[in-house]
Amino acid sequence: MASERLDFAATLAGKAGELGMEYFRRLETLTVTKKGHQDLVSEADRDVETLVRKELAAAYPQDGIVGEEHGRVEGSSGYTWVIDPIDGTANFVAGIPQWCVIIACVYNGETIVGVIHDPNANETFRAAKGEGAFVNDRPIKVTDSDSLSNGSLGVGFNGRTEASDAINCIGALVSKGGVFFRNASGGLMLAYAASGRLIGYCESHMNAWDCLAGMLITEEAGGMVAPYDADHTLTNGTRVVVGGPGVFKDIAEIVEASFGPRR
Amino acid sequence: MASERLDFAATLAGKAGELGMEYFRRLETLTVTKKGHQDLVSEADRDVETLVRKELAAAYPQDGIVGEEHGRVEGSSGYTWVIDPIDGTANFVAGIPQWCVIIACVYNGETIVGVIHDPNANETFRAAKGEGAFVNDRPIKVTDSDSLSNGSLGVGFNGRTEASDAINCIGALVSKGGVFFRNASGGLMLAYAASGRLIGYCESHMNAWDCLAGMLITEEAGGMVAPYDADHTLTNGTRVVVGGPGVFKDIAEIVEASFGPRR
Repeated sequence: MASERLDFAATLAGKAGELGMEYFRRLETLTVTKKGHQDLVSEADRDVETLVRKELAAAYPQDGIVGEEHGRVEGSSGYTWVIDPIDGTANFVAGIPQWCVIIACVYNGETIVGVIHDPNANETFRAAKGEGAFVNDRPIKVTDSDSLSNGSLGVGFNGRTEASDAINCIGALVSKGGVFFRNASGGLMLAYAASGRLIGYCESHMNAWDCLAGMLITEEAGGMVAPYDADHTLTNGTRVVVGGPGVFKDIAEIVEASFGPRR
Repeated sequence: MASERLDFAATLAGKAGELGMEYFRRLETLTVTKKGHQDLVSEADRDVETLVRKELAAAYPQDGIVGEEHGRVEGSSGYTWVIDPIDGTANFVAGIPQWCVIIACVYNGETIVGVIHDPNANETFRAAKGEGAFVNDRPIKVTDSDSLSNGSLGVGFNGRTEASDAINCIGALVSKGGVFFRNASGGLMLAYAASGRLIGYCESHMNAWDCLAGMLITEEAGGMVAPYDADHTLTNGTRVVVGGPGVFKDIAEIVEASFGPRR
């Protein structure tokens, strides 16, 4: 069941990415105000989510859906889809070609499908529970680094928790010889952690639609993920810490020393 | 003279980007060690610089050339080309599709041509002194934001100056309601500042091949750039601060309060 839903989600994320790109290219050619850009992005966000919801509802009418833009629809099958139509909207609105479409599916309190599609780079990161992780058709794995100084750590920053969380974390990382990375798309940074391009990723709070897919893909790529409850995350979000097995403990220690109390 | 050299440089940067992409795609298909990747990247860096030097020397045999990989060749025309074959090598080696080719030309102590080519996004940012700034064929301009909280600031981080420079800067920025961005390619971040995608960029020290092109493009896009001497920068590098006219003063104040003494 998981791999069938994975194939469906990967194809759907591709379509969603194409629709997002239509808006993104229109932004480029507009010389309008920031407000005008913001309006077009909000429209893109809503339209892409509508497309994704419509196709999911047609294919899996008994499944529930949770999305950033249109709230939650309960299902009866036990499966819940979790979607972020455009992750990295600040990049999207500014014209930075670093954003993605995220689709996850939760069953029985576990994420069983995760897709992160980057339409600018034409990369689809994906995993089904127990079946490994891939970018396009190539298997991926997390870093084999055993040192914080061998690679970069993605650090998320958001308006929902204290700004000091990210600042303290970056300070602690750098004091241990590490390097930070923040390209303003948590979904892409998680995908990069899953594929060993970053040594890991941490953020003091992410919503379900931003993180569930990436955490599953990282696990399936051999990475470690701080324990989380998918059902709780669906309504409340969660703290996110992931990394290669040789560096996860060091990352988790930095996070413990840097982040304020969990939400 | 500047616009002729600009056209030449833009075409050449495109060729260099194609060669870089050949290596980048080979990296993707390799499941080799980090060391193996590093070796291939070093080879890519050298080969791309060799291509650029060869074509420059053929077209402008009297011009000087300064590059990251092969050192300095003095010229007799008064023109000096300054090249970074692959900016963002940490991304390149890790497989993150965010790196660029940079070509600048200095004459009489001034940068007169700047090209930043992103082969992954197919974007070429370029400017000739006094002739405006463009991405591909579209004019670009810096942000019209007058607030640090309206957009993101690119913050560079390198191993050549105190780590506290970037940490203090990010802390000060965030305390004023700002947001930081670091995708590990100074060239791309400067290009984003020039095109209003970021509100500005700062880094405590950049080498000439990393920053001259981006500073010119930012100026030509209506931005402000902290004073620098191109000839001094050719040998010593410089501190870099750029931004939209409405936010430059605020950025410069953060930098003054955060960065240690200039190199």
